[in-house]
Amino acid sequence: MAQAADYRILHEADLRDYLAGLPDLKALLGGEPASWEITEVGDGNLNLVFIVKGAKGGVAVKQALPYVRLVGESWPLPLSRAHYEYLALSRQAQLAPGLVPALLHHNDKLALTVMELLEPHIIMRKGLVAATQYPGFVDDITTFMARTLFFTSDLALPAAEKKEAIAAFAGNHALCKITEDLIFTDPYRIAEQNRWTAPHLDGLAANLRDDMELHVAISRLKLKFMASPEALLHGDLHTGSIMVTENQTRVIDPEFAFYGPMGFDVGAVLANLLMAYFASAGHERTQGERAAFEVWVLETVDKVWNEFARKFLDLWRTGPTGDAYPTSLFTGDKGALRLEAERQAYMQRLFTDTVGFAAAKTIRRIFGLAHNIDFELIEDPWRRAISEARAVRLARGMMVEAAAFRTIADVTGAARKVRDWQPELTG
Amino acid sequence: MAQAADYRILHEADLRDYLAGLPDLKALLGGEPASWEITEVGDGNLNLVFIVKGAKGGVAVKQALPYVRLVGESWPLPLSRAHYEYLALSRQAQLAPGLVPALLHHNDKLALTVMELLEPHIIMRKGLVAATQYPGFVDDITTFMARTLFFTSDLALPAAEKKEAIAAFAGNHALCKITEDLIFTDPYRIAEQNRWTAPHLDGLAANLRDDMELHVAISRLKLKFMASPEALLHGDLHTGSIMVTENQTRVIDPEFAFYGPMGFDVGAVLANLLMAYFASAGHERTQGERAAFEVWVLETVDKVWNEFARKFLDLWRTGPTGDAYPTSLFTGDKGALRLEAERQAYMQRLFTDTVGFAAAKTIRRIFGLAHNIDFELIEDPWRRAISEARAVRLARGMMVEAAAFRTIADVTGAARKVRDWQPELTG
Repeated sequence: MAQAADYRILHEADLRDYLAGLPDLKALLGGEPASWEITEVGDGNLNLVFIVKGAKGGVAVKQALPYVRLVGESWPLPLSRAHYEYLALSRQAQLAPGLVPALLHHNDKLALTVMELLEPHIIMRKGLVAATQYPGFVDDITTFMARTLFFTSDLALPAAEKKEAIAAFAGNHALCKITEDLIFTDPYRIAEQNRWTAPHLDGLAANLRDDMELHVAISRLKLKFMASPEALLHGDLHTGSIMVTENQTRVIDPEFAFYGPMGFDVGAVLANLLMAYFASAGHERTQGERAAFEVWVLETVDKVWNEFARKFLDLWRTGPTGDAYPTSLFTGDKGALRLEAERQAYMQRLFTDTVGFAAAKTIRRIFGLAHNIDFELIEDPWRRAISEARAVRLARGMMVEAAAFRTIADVTGAARKVRDWQPELTG
Repeated sequence: MAQAADYRILHEADLRDYLAGLPDLKALLGGEPASWEITEVGDGNLNLVFIVKGAKGGVAVKQALPYVRLVGESWPLPLSRAHYEYLALSRQAQLAPGLVPALLHHNDKLALTVMELLEPHIIMRKGLVAATQYPGFVDDITTFMARTLFFTSDLALPAAEKKEAIAAFAGNHALCKITEDLIFTDPYRIAEQNRWTAPHLDGLAANLRDDMELHVAISRLKLKFMASPEALLHGDLHTGSIMVTENQTRVIDPEFAFYGPMGFDVGAVLANLLMAYFASAGHERTQGERAAFEVWVLETVDKVWNEFARKFLDLWRTGPTGDAYPTSLFTGDKGALRLEAERQAYMQRLFTDTVGFAAAKTIRRIFGLAHNIDFELIEDPWRRAISEARAVRLARGMMVEAAAFRTIADVTGAARKVRDWQPELTG
């Protein structure tokens, strides 16, 4: 765990000296330390991120700050999150090799991690705003999710190992609390940090605060988030935590990692693709210019769920058997058939969770503290509000009637219908 | 945690010296240590239990053995269970004062705990075999369950505290594993340690092993047991873990304590009362001589659920608010009404869990390793098998169609119907 006494923020000069003292990294960077080019690039909400380039190579350095960068020292946040991020990244690297940045160095006391420099990868969300299609994304992200979720679940692990793993991440509760507040609570009540496209969405925001069916649904999801340690989650798996080229995908920033409900990770990916879809109309300069992108995004939503489910089921059928659903209780043809039916039922329950969590991840981006550039970069507030209202309309249905969406095609079908709906806005 | 190096089994002479070295206990017992009367009385499956009586008072001493007493050194079991038992007992004493034995001394290295001597309390199961009614039991056990479960749940705790508490008990997985194997797996497959009233129940045992609907149901319950840390459970709350007089109730032996699904504790109490009910016919010497007892037992089943639910709901309405179901989302009359409806829905889900877990606790006592004297003391194997078959018939329905039992009256009504059913037995 990070100890405040040994911690210091490494600014550029300190960082240069620190890296120069690590022979492997010094060799990797190459040339004289004085010649290394160091740039602070952190555009996230919480940390310092440096890119360091030497004569031979480059690295990315991430250091946690003892407070929320977005807000300042008034909102302290434990440095230990760097420890949990490192733990999660190590586990993900074992389980989904090549889909997370390579780990080069970690210092718990400094809450600092050095990783492979991802070049020429960009944050996927930026690519989506630019209507870029990523043909390798479905395969990569579904492999990442299926493998990290299955292999850390009771389906694959002995119960003792699973309990120890839950305990190993239990201390990351300050990061969980951010999610509990900002995703599952604040958007549905008056909270200082909330914001939305105003006055256009004022009416919608008021409806949200008054919608008791929605409050019950979000509260059930919150309870599930807090008390269903099904698997090791990334915990913040939106398109801003994914770096891509056309053919490569790297999942970054698992500092929110903990044992939680699988649908939270899967729902995060789906929600952020759906938001890219609804935002797309707002980025059009001429009508229909992004039509092919929009078709691709919705196809991607379909495929992300379907491929994830296929791979997860495949691992369950052929991978290691944990203490859940012991194979000795499902012998013979009859047992095999019944177990397969139960696997399908399990996936259906997971899909219902996923639909609900996707809805929660959408609403928080429109009415809560942290917004996303999919919507934020739509300059005209009317057009932005129209895109946002459509996303909220779909999300409200997904949250309150999650179980009515039986397949992912039900979700994308509903999204298509909402795409051309003209909301009544305020102001 | 217990360290093997510092551990030694305290036999009578060692124990006398050890207690003599503890001034408070020495004073409590009174007189010369040489005059203390020390008796080993452990009739449980796992530990040594001594009763020590001096000139002035007595104490009970429990020491964990590094193996399962029932089986011997071939089945090792961590001494750390004494640590978790002590942790649980301390928490229960805070939450349900007067309903657990007073803690007098604990030594983690020796895996030893000294407690108040409960006199003239007897193990409740023995009383039930003797058709004794306990008028104070409903009120006491429902207070114990409502308070220990509510106050350790997300309904009452901040999420951070809850996660730390889960982690504090995560190391007790060896005891959880016993439950996972002996309750949720072995009775449904061929396992060396299984036993049942043979040959009379051979056919029923074979049906159980072949019943894939039941295997799915027990596997879902097992998964819930492993991955739903709703509250701090006693973990073994049968009528052998409860000591009673007519007016006093003390819950003992929480060494299986961990964070799990609430229905497991509530179901344990109901199952053991239902088994006492079905066993009762087997203890009759003349027809109807235990009729009043049987009426009382079924009334007690009804009241245990109803009073538990009433007290739990009352705590939820008036007690501390944890991070689940934040009151700020349920303001005004409309919010209050909707939250109350959700509380009822929550209790309905908990009832369904309870019904399923009660069934699991029943079947394991008839086909698994650990049986209970309710049935075992019925000498005539035919009569014993008839009682057992009735209990299994009810339990099978409760497990496979748990949600069809909407109220506890549905359970006791079904029990009454099965009471006079004549099963077809083998042999």
